Amino acid sequence: MTKILIVGGVAGGASAAARARRLSEDAEIIMFERGKFVSFANCGLPYHIGGDIQDRSKLLLQTPDSFLARFNVDVRVFNEVTGINRENKTVTVKNLIDGQEYTENYDFLLLSPGAGPIVPPIPGINNPLTHSLRNIPDMDKIIQTLQMNKPEHATVVGGGFIGLEMMEAFHQLGIPTTLIEMADQVMTPVDREMAGFVHNEIRNKGIDLRLGVALQSVEFVPSTSVANRNAGETDEHQHLEGELNLTLNNGDTLTTDILIMAIGVRPDIKLAQDAGLQIGSTGGIYTNEYMQTSDPAIYAVGDAVEETDFVTGKPTLVPLAGPANRQGRIAADNMLGRQETYQRTQGTAICKVFDIAVGSTGKNEKQLQREGLAYEKAYVHTASHASYYPGAEVVSLKLLFDPHSGKILGAQAVGKDGIDKRIDVLAVAQRAGMTVEQLQHLELTYAPPYGSAKDVINQAAFVATNILKGDATPIHYDAIDQLSDDQILLDVRNPGELSNVGYIDGAINIPVDQLRQRMDELPKDKEIVIYCQVGLRGNVAYRQLVNNGYKACNLIGGYRTWLTAKQ
Amino acid sequence: MTKILIVGGVAGGASAAARARRLSEDAEIIMFERGKFVSFANCGLPYHIGGDIQDRSKLLLQTPDSFLARFNVDVRVFNEVTGINRENKTVTVKNLIDGQEYTENYDFLLLSPGAGPIVPPIPGINNPLTHSLRNIPDMDKIIQTLQMNKPEHATVVGGGFIGLEMMEAFHQLGIPTTLIEMADQVMTPVDREMAGFVHNEIRNKGIDLRLGVALQSVEFVPSTSVANRNAGETDEHQHLEGELNLTLNNGDTLTTDILIMAIGVRPDIKLAQDAGLQIGSTGGIYTNEYMQTSDPAIYAVGDAVEETDFVTGKPTLVPLAGPANRQGRIAADNMLGRQETYQRTQGTAICKVFDIAVGSTGKNEKQLQREGLAYEKAYVHTASHASYYPGAEVVSLKLLFDPHSGKILGAQAVGKDGIDKRIDVLAVAQRAGMTVEQLQHLELTYAPPYGSAKDVINQAAFVATNILKGDATPIHYDAIDQLSDDQILLDVRNPGELSNVGYIDGAINIPVDQLRQRMDELPKDKEIVIYCQVGLRGNVAYRQLVNNGYKACNLIGGYRTWLTAKQ
Repeated sequence: MTKILIVGGVAGGASAAARARRLSEDAEIIMFERGKFVSFANCGLPYHIGGDIQDRSKLLLQTPDSFLARFNVDVRVFNEVTGINRENKTVTVKNLIDGQEYTENYDFLLLSPGAGPIVPPIPGINNPLTHSLRNIPDMDKIIQTLQMNKPEHATVVGGGFIGLEMMEAFHQLGIPTTLIEMADQVMTPVDREMAGFVHNEIRNKGIDLRLGVALQSVEFVPSTSVANRNAGETDEHQHLEGELNLTLNNGDTLTTDILIMAIGVRPDIKLAQDAGLQIGSTGGIYTNEYMQTSDPAIYAVGDAVEETDFVTGKPTLVPLAGPANRQGRIAADNMLGRQETYQRTQGTAICKVFDIAVGSTGKNEKQLQREGLAYEKAYVHTASHASYYPGAEVVSLKLLFDPHSGKILGAQAVGKDGIDKRIDVLAVAQRAGMTVEQLQHLELTYAPPYGSAKDVINQAAFVATNILKGDATPIHYDAIDQLSDDQILLDVRNPGELSNVGYIDGAINIPVDQLRQRMDELPKDKEIVIYCQVGLRGNVAYRQLVNNGYKACNLIGGYRTWLTAKQ
Repeated sequence: MTKILIVGGVAGGASAAARARRLSEDAEIIMFERGKFVSFANCGLPYHIGGDIQDRSKLLLQTPDSFLARFNVDVRVFNEVTGINRENKTVTVKNLIDGQEYTENYDFLLLSPGAGPIVPPIPGINNPLTHSLRNIPDMDKIIQTLQMNKPEHATVVGGGFIGLEMMEAFHQLGIPTTLIEMADQVMTPVDREMAGFVHNEIRNKGIDLRLGVALQSVEFVPSTSVANRNAGETDEHQHLEGELNLTLNNGDTLTTDILIMAIGVRPDIKLAQDAGLQIGSTGGIYTNEYMQTSDPAIYAVGDAVEETDFVTGKPTLVPLAGPANRQGRIAADNMLGRQETYQRTQGTAICKVFDIAVGSTGKNEKQLQREGLAYEKAYVHTASHASYYPGAEVVSLKLLFDPHSGKILGAQAVGKDGIDKRIDVLAVAQRAGMTVEQLQHLELTYAPPYGSAKDVINQAAFVATNILKGDATPIHYDAIDQLSDDQILLDVRNPGELSNVGYIDGAINIPVDQLRQRMDELPKDKEIVIYCQVGLRGNVAYRQLVNNGYKACNLIGGYRTWLTAKQ
């Protein structure tokens, strides 16, 4: 009889427990959780605060009782594993209710402790109105603060998934909100110019977005009514009333009634580190592809472990639910005698930001530059489904690819409709090792309500393949503001578009449909830098010009990408 | 200077013309279209009739003038190519306006004549109230009939894409509608049990659905008011008033006010056949992978050509817009000196049927049986996104795979949300040659509004891989009604579910969470045929039983698949 101990009862741990039982009826399986809850929907927490998920109990996917009944797993909540004795194969457990310590022996130990919110040592940060959000008690505390303090203003620090979701939750509750992000963009999985769409959406909803600035200090000012309150109130409730004076590193100050710190998470490695298990260079627990730590009897999964990046093959930290769940399943397989491997992490992710979605897979341009990897890129902005059918929205898609082999390195997309679908398609294509040339041939679902005969993906593949084969000479948005005297800028849109949506300074305007007749207005001794709204007409003009002996290049993604990069 | 003639100005022809011009400024390109319109949105026609697309002009994507201005293509509408002289490399063209004939010579000729509706020789079928729908004039005639005859009842014959879309259009206009389909199911790209969801949706909307019955004869009865009408009316309008008496091959009769024949299309091969070009065994024009016919100077694309099936490698007819567009582009490449190949057809397709979508890719079970190919299958019914987040809908997915290699043979999905996405993901995976084992590792976008940490695709992959590896012994819906005396049927759902949604006759009921305690109620000398609602709890029960020494199997897709197969 195999005895398996599992530390942590959420995504990775719970998946492993269920899988282990399906593989073996006679294994003894004990799952320790230091908190009150197992298998809760951590990704749903912001949506309960914001009111989209009304019923709190919907977040509690399993209970210790349901786990016992269905999977015969001994779930011990409020039980914290405090130490591992690898030699004896035992763990020390502290019952957090009665303070008693005890030991349990194991054949295999699975560590799934997750990651904890990073809270930087900012003066004054420890106060009753400042929260992070990682679990049900965190969520309950935020809701309690909202109920007690009735905030008239909220501040979120950090523009990642949780930060953006909390910003939206506050907005949905009618609370004016400031979002503070130290970088020059939110949603770092996408590149700056793609994040422009998100900034635009955030500002359009009335959020006070502050980029490139950091929180420096916090001052908690309890409300005066608290002091006068009669003695019947509990201390805890009294502390939830007041306000915070925030000082930013650019000297700005603001007053807010609730503060959410959401700048990121850090793997919880204490137990592993104390036990002498190998920690990777990124700060996560090292495992091999079987999810086995440096001790063959100990496995680790989820946000606490270091993974191997799909594109670079280097170690990386990707604290997401999908990998955690799959790793849990694989660890259970291997503890029970199978040989299953985890097949690297692409980091596929998506976030809803008000009416838009922003998603990505693989590497972004910033990462590729850091790694010194060669890349080329294509942008398209095209309809999510047939534009003549109601409800079509623009999908803005960026495709990064190897400039020699054409292999997909990464993809990013933003828009109101069909973002998840396009990133999923590209995530599969990337995993399969496909090239942009092969993407041209993809046969995707088409009917007017769902797609186009040439889908967004096919169109992006056409643009990329044209670049790859030399059928297009690309110029990118960040080169447009530094043209030389040997280049002239040509806007091939219709005059009405220039006056309606703006244009790039210094451009001359010849609409694409007049270009054949007016080509002699252009000099043959200069490079014609062509742009249109999204790059499509620009390509038609480009082909006309080069086929007529001109030197030319086309702004990939057009005016729309150029403009968004500044937003 | 290369001279290219193109016959047919819609999907394939228009794509080829635009691509050819982008590749060459000096090619002479003439596009002949016997109709009035080029490059119109044929897939949008039913939606204009039904009112979703209000503005008819939205269906006209390009005009001869816009083609000339942008692509310098000489578009000749109302010009029908009536003959090909391959020896001289000329075509004979008839100007349908003045009746004049003329010839044009070519270096390359591209045939993109499309396919025409099949109208069987049913007595009385030629009458003013019977229509097919293939182009703008067909659409205009249907709208005119609706305006003149103000139908109180409509009949559609044929349950394919156009038939279903026209059924929905009539329903949207408030016209009670009968749908007649000769087969025992609509939407033949999916299998019978998946079509059950569509039948259910159609009947729930109040459509009179008649399966397994054919139209035998039609009698046109002009309205009596027409006879009394004053002479000011045109003949044409008078004929549009009246009704039709339909007789079906089961003896049933019905009276209707408009009849749509949508039983399918047939490649338009007359021109090719008359010119002695090779016609394939399926009845479409033969081409090689370069889209070249048996005459190297003549290319052919779109609904008129025979394609190679992605799975079987055999010839097939797939009259869809996506392949037509890609083939047009490839033909243009090759006419202008490149070497691009068309990479087979999966037949990926989707159709909106009221509130649900039904989609598929690759081969279905009927086809695999006909081809004598070995296969196994998995069903899942699971939420389109995190079930705790509002708006989640069940995705019902069928995955067909090679029982030895695990390669994807085909996929089908039905539901209200996320159908296009799942079929797209599987279409890419199939094209990449992935196995169901590899699908387990797919890293797809997850946030509560868009997906699940274990997506529908991952879950289907788990079920399929369990079968492939022998971790699950499947039984399928069609075997349940013929169990032997050595098998007993076990329903592991909760008693409340049995009373609410029904159960299979003869089943005993032990809820999965009580199974460990009550296992001794089950005989060890019989095979336990387990089922639950969708197959998931059935798998948990199955694992418990086999790990305890029982012989068992699990109904894949559960009660839901079994029930739907009868709908």
